[in-house]
Amino acid sequence: MDKKKIGIIGATGYTGSELVRILTNHPNVEIKVITSESRAGELFSDVHPFLQGIADQKLVSINEIDNYDLDLVFLALPHGVSMDFVKRFNDKKFKIIDLSGDFRLSSQEIYEEWYKIPHIYPEGIEKAVFGCPELYFDKIKKANLIANPGCFPTSAILGLAPLLAADLIETDRIIIDSKTGVTGAGIKAKNVNLYSNVNDNFKAYGLKNHRHTIEIQGILDSVSEKETIIQFTPHLLPVDRGILSTIYARPTQKIDENKLKELYKTFYVNAPFVRLRKQEPAIKDVRGTNYCDLFVTYDKRTNMIILVSVIDNLIKGAAGQAIQNMNIVFGFEETSGLNLIPLNP
Amino acid sequence: MDKKKIGIIGATGYTGSELVRILTNHPNVEIKVITSESRAGELFSDVHPFLQGIADQKLVSINEIDNYDLDLVFLALPHGVSMDFVKRFNDKKFKIIDLSGDFRLSSQEIYEEWYKIPHIYPEGIEKAVFGCPELYFDKIKKANLIANPGCFPTSAILGLAPLLAADLIETDRIIIDSKTGVTGAGIKAKNVNLYSNVNDNFKAYGLKNHRHTIEIQGILDSVSEKETIIQFTPHLLPVDRGILSTIYARPTQKIDENKLKELYKTFYVNAPFVRLRKQEPAIKDVRGTNYCDLFVTYDKRTNMIILVSVIDNLIKGAAGQAIQNMNIVFGFEETSGLNLIPLNP
Amino acid sequence: MDKKKIGIIGATGYTGSELVRILTNHPNVEIKVITSESRAGELFSDVHPFLQGIADQKLVSINEIDNYDLDLVFLALPHGVSMDFVKRFNDKKFKIIDLSGDFRLSSQEIYEEWYKIPHIYPEGIEKAVFGCPELYFDKIKKANLIANPGCFPTSAILGLAPLLAADLIETDRIIIDSKTGVTGAGIKAKNVNLYSNVNDNFKAYGLKNHRHTIEIQGILDSVSEKETIIQFTPHLLPVDRGILSTIYARPTQKIDENKLKELYKTFYVNAPFVRLRKQEPAIKDVRGTNYCDLFVTYDKRTNMIILVSVIDNLIKGAAGQAIQNMNIVFGFEETSGLNLIPLNP
Amino acid sequence: MDKKKIGIIGATGYTGSELVRILTNHPNVEIKVITSESRAGELFSDVHPFLQGIADQKLVSINEIDNYDLDLVFLALPHGVSMDFVKRFNDKKFKIIDLSGDFRLSSQEIYEEWYKIPHIYPEGIEKAVFGCPELYFDKIKKANLIANPGCFPTSAILGLAPLLAADLIETDRIIIDSKTGVTGAGIKAKNVNLYSNVNDNFKAYGLKNHRHTIEIQGILDSVSEKETIIQFTPHLLPVDRGILSTIYARPTQKIDENKLKELYKTFYVNAPFVRLRKQEPAIKDVRGTNYCDLFVTYDKRTNMIILVSVIDNLIKGAAGQAIQNMNIVFGFEETSGLNLIPLNP
Repeated sequence: MDKKKIGIIGATGYTGSELVRILTNHPNVEIKVITSESRAGELFSDVHPFLQGIADQKLVSINEIDNYDLDLVFLALPHGVSMDFVKRFNDKKFKIIDLSGDFRLSSQEIYEEWYKIPHIYPEGIEKAVFGCPELYFDKIKKANLIANPGCFPTSAILGLAPLLAADLIETDRIIIDSKTGVTGAGIKAKNVNLYSNVNDNFKAYGLKNHRHTIEIQGILDSVSEKETIIQFTPHLLPVDRGILSTIYARPTQKIDENKLKELYKTFYVNAPFVRLRKQEPAIKDVRGTNYCDLFVTYDKRTNMIILVSVIDNLIKGAAGQAIQNMNIVFGFEETSGLNLIPLNP
Repeated sequence: MDKKKIGIIGATGYTGSELVRILTNHPNVEIKVITSESRAGELFSDVHPFLQGIADQKLVSINEIDNYDLDLVFLALPHGVSMDFVKRFNDKKFKIIDLSGDFRLSSQEIYEEWYKIPHIYPEGIEKAVFGCPELYFDKIKKANLIANPGCFPTSAILGLAPLLAADLIETDRIIIDSKTGVTGAGIKAKNVNLYSNVNDNFKAYGLKNHRHTIEIQGILDSVSEKETIIQFTPHLLPVDRGILSTIYARPTQKIDENKLKELYKTFYVNAPFVRLRKQEPAIKDVRGTNYCDLFVTYDKRTNMIILVSVIDNLIKGAAGQAIQNMNIVFGFEETSGLNLIPLNP
Repeated sequence: MDKKKIGIIGATGYTGSELVRILTNHPNVEIKVITSESRAGELFSDVHPFLQGIADQKLVSINEIDNYDLDLVFLALPHGVSMDFVKRFNDKKFKIIDLSGDFRLSSQEIYEEWYKIPHIYPEGIEKAVFGCPELYFDKIKKANLIANPGCFPTSAILGLAPLLAADLIETDRIIIDSKTGVTGAGIKAKNVNLYSNVNDNFKAYGLKNHRHTIEIQGILDSVSEKETIIQFTPHLLPVDRGILSTIYARPTQKIDENKLKELYKTFYVNAPFVRLRKQEPAIKDVRGTNYCDLFVTYDKRTNMIILVSVIDNLIKGAAGQAIQNMNIVFGFEETSGLNLIPLNP
Repeated sequence: MDKKKIGIIGATGYTGSELVRILTNHPNVEIKVITSESRAGELFSDVHPFLQGIADQKLVSINEIDNYDLDLVFLALPHGVSMDFVKRFNDKKFKIIDLSGDFRLSSQEIYEEWYKIPHIYPEGIEKAVFGCPELYFDKIKKANLIANPGCFPTSAILGLAPLLAADLIETDRIIIDSKTGVTGAGIKAKNVNLYSNVNDNFKAYGLKNHRHTIEIQGILDSVSEKETIIQFTPHLLPVDRGILSTIYARPTQKIDENKLKELYKTFYVNAPFVRLRKQEPAIKDVRGTNYCDLFVTYDKRTNMIILVSVIDNLIKGAAGQAIQNMNIVFGFEETSGLNLIPLNP
């Protein structure tokens, strides 16, 4: 079988480097082109020197993209920039997997309210499929434009979906206390990711108004068919990668610990990247992989369900999930190229 | 004025080294004796080499304690061991500040249920005063036995007390999501504090049954005069020191952001170590100090109050608060010897 | 081609978990048995929970090893223990790759002087081949017992070999200032790898008498055919993995920067895991891989050659190099199963 | 005694915040003014929020400095900027302690060769005293302009001075392998101090041409009265604070370990901040303090002296040493306000 031909738009960020890192060992695809406006003409390994000898492709400007015959492109671009390219690529024959937040919400209005910028391509919102394979496998298979989920939403949605699908919890007071590694803030140096502001430190941020709140709520609404109200609080961990979300929800009926665990087992029986863990998972347990590890338990004393959900924010929370979506689109094994084993320690 | 004469029982742990570190520069006291059974005969700085030239006292066995004329002793001992000494010291003239959990709970029954060991000195529970100066200043002043609060409880109680005292929140569903540095696990090497298990990692632990749950609940019950139900989940941060607790509670009445902040200002008007912060505090903002930094806000969209509370677990969460209690007992300035400024970065 | 059948002796350490992690995705071999005395009967993933669902083999006692038909065993055991097994396996038909230090030195006398314990199997020292593929490929191909190099020696030897083979430097005053991650101290919790002793900290240790000194010197002696005197100082970094060695040597002749770089290029032309870097490498540039990254330069002002050499101590410094040796022994591609790309960040 | 009146020029960097942090508790001085051009009008604690409630002085522009009656000013400014202010303050009556590198070298020519910019105030170079109290106490006492030593030079010079003063080592081949925490790179966010570039990482930089090379060599030349040639290699540690220098030198005569240690004891008998350690010091042993911890040993096998020297780069390597110099200038106790105890862990 011929290898599928891939383009990567945006080379300088972590998402770009993770896509290249993983696709380099993918058996069924070939990276045909990587674009960068700021570093065009340089090698990919000039931008990411640890890839010297591994990924030495020359970067080209996006203007040259028509010279390449492509089956699929990944957009590894910031929010607000991505929609412009999705619009430009409207009539191209290649599929698009967009890793930004531009097409994840349910309407232009909601986007503009939470992102505080105008959306220039609302038609894309209509067409886009939310790329959560564990929930929308069949839609993804047929999609031309996939909105790859955000990192926090991935951890929260995979944790809560079984409970909401089974109509087992109160939906108006779900608390998601999330903790993320620094790479979530991107590769550009700024105060928030300055070493001495992060090392041996920890803080909450974005209280009450982080954009991922509405992304989580939107998807959970569709899963639960009830309106959900989510309290989402992100925190910044002194680690490179990883998200751990601790989730609290009150059951609406009598709960049995074993049946609760059984519910998750059944819900994720066909999900190769969801691991139901025997004990509380740590973020290093999934580092470098596409796994989402889940642990669920019930506290009789307080009548609360507690969930712990962990992912690698750059992989299951970004590049890995995008490649999982690509595998589905092309009809490959869902795990193809993603047989990554945690690097621990 | 003559300096007060101090004994420290237990020298090898972090609490011991922090007590010595802070008391060394305290203007009104003198460390007369430090005991250790395992290291008797050695210097304190042999056990903690960074104190070479600063704290070179020779360690003695507890059996020699009667050779010293003491005004107050700190017990820096593990849970279960401490009560034995409190009992032995029953008829001594010196005051006792116990840094273990042995005298913090309200009854022998509750202690034995949560600590899973028999309590050999229930009379002590009756006599002990819970050493939270912001709540029990007057009782501490007259106490002979002070149970110094646990680290997590300090952060949680100082965060919630104003809301509960004002009867402003639902008490049966308070969520305390806490994150602690590694020193909380003690100085002995074990799997949980092995570098490579902690570094670049993060996890929840003690779900549903951590002992500090009942300590927090007990004190909050007394503050609120209603029964509280607390969901407390600790997590382990890759940092040395510091606790950050994110707390979620539903108001029972209409809330105004400004009045909420005013409430805290009034409640802590005489508390020199509570800082009400303009923005969300980070744990490094209090590192090396006796501060508890608080930030409170109200989310109209979800109708929830969110609180962020940070302390240095070894200082406000242990040795510093113990010295604050000592200052009160002796009638010193509450801040004497505790004018510590955050080491940041 | 049938897959080769592999046994791993010793499952609880980092070396064991790395061997399993890498071999799980190796196309040409199959792990037939993993032994552990302390954890026999449990699953490998009970010992290393991050491997749940990935490596769930049941651990067996070494006494059952004769039930398995094996082509090669890896000994992932401590120094002093390993030689006992090498002796016991003397008449087995399988090849042995020993990851301990027991067979790396040139004689029983030297071993006993530096390791301070008797060597019970000096015949093994005679038979063993030092498993540095970049220097001894042909010997490794035919070996039955391979002494896999130490981590520090791997970084130092690969850095210095080209200079010594070309007789380009003074050999009596080579300074190797090495810095290692914590995993070099093993998986057992002890003071040296306690989180709070390592985090935000740095120190030198083993001054003048670290055992790897003599291992480095022994191999360099054979490369240079002159006697070398090595000053080797290890330091402990607050990182999980990685060794960086900074090496200082005085040239014995006029040096030209370009020719110096050319010398390395020629020397390592057939070495797929040695990367000659354009700039000074960082340890994260090789994290999770079998690479040794080298950078060499000449300081005209001081007339000194400076070398920077980095490896992942658990891979090129242990498990990865062992698998590289295995590939050579079996006639596989030298890189088979080792197409690992750095996890950075 | 009236308190001395202090000005601090430059508020936004680490040096500024450390000066304020330490001087706040200094018994004999008062901070009268802190200037900042970029943040004038804001509070000092707006720039460094961890100082809320502790240092809430309003920042003013340098243009207002004449409104203040000052005894001494600290210049906490970048290299190249500082000389401009030293020149402007030429006729002021206050003393100046400059924490930049602008007046540390012995001549304009050398400065311009290593700093690659013109020096606009060579007269200042003539007047300036190098503020190393352990070497130049008497000159500092009388100085009007003190060039506060660089961080690496402080660690290297204090380590080597006793050997050079005693003419005990070869001076043409001294190797100084130094490792520094990230704060050495300043408070501005850039690639080099981006969290994910530093965390779990380690690298060498500035090989052959770091500016501190010439600063070290200049001072050592004056101590030894022989010309020295220094090979200085800095490395970047994943820690906030701290420098550890490992130094290698060959003796010119027979060495005895005890006499070597005695030499250091004698040399530093009046130096309250030099601690001669029983064992190899770690950087956390001096964190938050003005100590320089030294360990010296002799390796008979290789005939080399090995030195380990550690400091807190922001304190003994910058603000603390500056305050030590101020104490000397004003005739205070040398340790006044500097009774800082290591924060460890």
